Amino acid sequence: MESLAERRLRLMGPNVPTFYRDPVHIVRGEGVWLWDADGRRYLDCYNNVPHVGHCHPRVVEAISRQAGILNTHTRYLHEGILDYLDRLTARFDHGLTQTILVCTGSEANDVALRMAEAVTGKTGIIATDNTYHGNTRATSQLSTRRPPIGGYPGHVRLVPAPDSLHPVGGSPEGQAQAFAAEVARAIAELEEAGHGFAGFMLCPAFANEGLPVLPPGFLDPTIAVVRAAGGLVLCDEVQPGFGRLGSAWWGHAHMGFAPDVVTLGKPMANGHPVAAVVCRPDVMAAFRGAFGYFNTFGGTPVSAAAALATLEVIEAEDLVGNARDVGAHAFGLLRGLSHPRIAEVRGLGLFLAVEFVLEDGAPATDFAEEVVERMRQRGVLLNRIGRKMNILKMRPPMVFARDNAEMLAATLADVLDGMPA
Amino acid sequence: MESLAERRLRLMGPNVPTFYRDPVHIVRGEGVWLWDADGRRYLDCYNNVPHVGHCHPRVVEAISRQAGILNTHTRYLHEGILDYLDRLTARFDHGLTQTILVCTGSEANDVALRMAEAVTGKTGIIATDNTYHGNTRATSQLSTRRPPIGGYPGHVRLVPAPDSLHPVGGSPEGQAQAFAAEVARAIAELEEAGHGFAGFMLCPAFANEGLPVLPPGFLDPTIAVVRAAGGLVLCDEVQPGFGRLGSAWWGHAHMGFAPDVVTLGKPMANGHPVAAVVCRPDVMAAFRGAFGYFNTFGGTPVSAAAALATLEVIEAEDLVGNARDVGAHAFGLLRGLSHPRIAEVRGLGLFLAVEFVLEDGAPATDFAEEVVERMRQRGVLLNRIGRKMNILKMRPPMVFARDNAEMLAATLADVLDGMPA
Repeated sequence: MESLAERRLRLMGPNVPTFYRDPVHIVRGEGVWLWDADGRRYLDCYNNVPHVGHCHPRVVEAISRQAGILNTHTRYLHEGILDYLDRLTARFDHGLTQTILVCTGSEANDVALRMAEAVTGKTGIIATDNTYHGNTRATSQLSTRRPPIGGYPGHVRLVPAPDSLHPVGGSPEGQAQAFAAEVARAIAELEEAGHGFAGFMLCPAFANEGLPVLPPGFLDPTIAVVRAAGGLVLCDEVQPGFGRLGSAWWGHAHMGFAPDVVTLGKPMANGHPVAAVVCRPDVMAAFRGAFGYFNTFGGTPVSAAAALATLEVIEAEDLVGNARDVGAHAFGLLRGLSHPRIAEVRGLGLFLAVEFVLEDGAPATDFAEEVVERMRQRGVLLNRIGRKMNILKMRPPMVFARDNAEMLAATLADVLDGMPA
Repeated sequence: MESLAERRLRLMGPNVPTFYRDPVHIVRGEGVWLWDADGRRYLDCYNNVPHVGHCHPRVVEAISRQAGILNTHTRYLHEGILDYLDRLTARFDHGLTQTILVCTGSEANDVALRMAEAVTGKTGIIATDNTYHGNTRATSQLSTRRPPIGGYPGHVRLVPAPDSLHPVGGSPEGQAQAFAAEVARAIAELEEAGHGFAGFMLCPAFANEGLPVLPPGFLDPTIAVVRAAGGLVLCDEVQPGFGRLGSAWWGHAHMGFAPDVVTLGKPMANGHPVAAVVCRPDVMAAFRGAFGYFNTFGGTPVSAAAALATLEVIEAEDLVGNARDVGAHAFGLLRGLSHPRIAEVRGLGLFLAVEFVLEDGAPATDFAEEVVERMRQRGVLLNRIGRKMNILKMRPPMVFARDNAEMLAATLADVLDGMPA
């Protein structure tokens, strides 16, 4: 009898990653819970896509109803997309009033890169050296987990990522200026190489970089450098967006800067494939004037209904407030954990991280992996991030409750207690 | 009171195209029918995305059911994607047994291009000079409706598209050899420029090129040239796939050649955002070995359920047979139309085209536009293709019936009768 893993290998090919040494066979989800084929329940502390909870009935109902009425592209008129865009852009400041709906965060970032090109007439792009902005050919060229096919092209420069334990420039206080200086150097290189500078793409929470603790105003000097050079600030909100950080709907609001372009993705429609690019009218006009962009599945009535229902649940259930309150509770509990491998506990709303290091300060990669595996064995799903994958990453559905946080922390305490010294 | 068109402009920006001078405000769909906000019914002769009919209850039910049970990414195990891929790849020959599920045809073609790079170690890509393969940065570089932002890059060569009325090489008989010679010339140019040759991307029906009538074996000399040069044949089945041509499930089967990579899109899940790349294991291994591709929304349980339901309806209702039979009936009726502007009527299953030319043989672009508008006024939705947009394009849902074909032909006869000479 062929196992599911064997079927995957036969039908999907090699190197298609699963989580965990013993991959979980999930068959059902509800709220913060997932169930496997044996009926075992797992606390989902990892998945940000089911933002308002797995299978939220209001989103399911919206998808089901609209799928039964109409689902076409946007070359006909339909209220659905407009009703949603009105609600979405009401959540933005800085003149970010116009939107392109697409299907994935990768598509959104791929568009954002071309907006920077269209506005500036240049091609040079800067990102950090420990990030991920998507899987299209263009966005994969900014993604550093593995080099893109064909290698890194000349028009891309990767600057050292902000880091809590090993700050750029050597000190937490100096990191903001040092990071801005790295960006300025990359801009000069791009200009010298003839590419010119189009834009800087960043996650405002530096999520893939490990969610570093950064001082207030950290990005101010960098944003000033980007603006002075005539480049666009391309803000990838695929992870921090829609209230994840608890303090604001968007990561750029949390960090206190004004982006030129914002991209949205994963949590936007609770799992239905919807993503977006939000920008100022002048940026949209430059892009729309240069290129006839159309996306068949972007902004269909079903996509718009799923996204609108998700947004309405975030508002109706005050999930941003929940991320703030439960996130703070979880952060406090995790900070109370004691183990010699814990170097730092970090938290922004319902985005939490625990970094492990060895006695000599080196990344405790194997330790972190073992913790993830043991948490999974005890029914708590989370995972790892960071350059050396030594940082626990927790990013649960936004309906995460206080007792869920307590179960997470108690299980982690227990697992850490049982770990070899 | 702000109109829908004004809201679109405010929220979506300029140059977001709608169909028709007076865009249709569609609110409901069922089978081959669409209804506007005033309750007026339209015969949909254009939309290939609702492949098994607008709002097919079996697809709606599959989406609704699975959305209420579980929707996660593919890093856990789930039968849904495997059950679908087994059914899908059973429809392929030539060793095409492995699949990556993505969300859009653009994403699929973007992956296919990198598969050619991964296999060959080269970057040069050839496409025709009147085609469209997607809206990502990489795929837009092969799309000729408008030049891509940043211009056409050096590693892309566009060869003259096959054409019914103005065949490449000057004669219908010689077009197959002349087309192959153009491809050979482009390969030599790519090699001379140092890019090398990675692959040739084509739609096997040359749909955007205007659905030209081509002799049997037309592509054989071209495929031989591509193979001899070590390049991959990347077959974009987004339009002809899933039985549209009536004669076979896939355009490459209709044309009688063996692709290395096949991409699927629009009709695959009747409107739910699902697309795919199907290839041989050696091609998949080269890609998966070179690049850590993961797609968050690709192959989720809901996407797999929607795609499987669509495939099962195609089989259960014998929609490929319907495309053959009703397509032939429609083709016969359209061939029976008489008007001095009709240069050629072309049909492959439920993909039909009528090319209009002026008395001097020049493309009758304005005439075609006027016909499209008048058909819309009479409740029949279709549109235009071709280098000069002088070709009617008809590509209805696959449940199109004989009396639908008769309504289409009768309405078109009537519209043509009323057109100024």
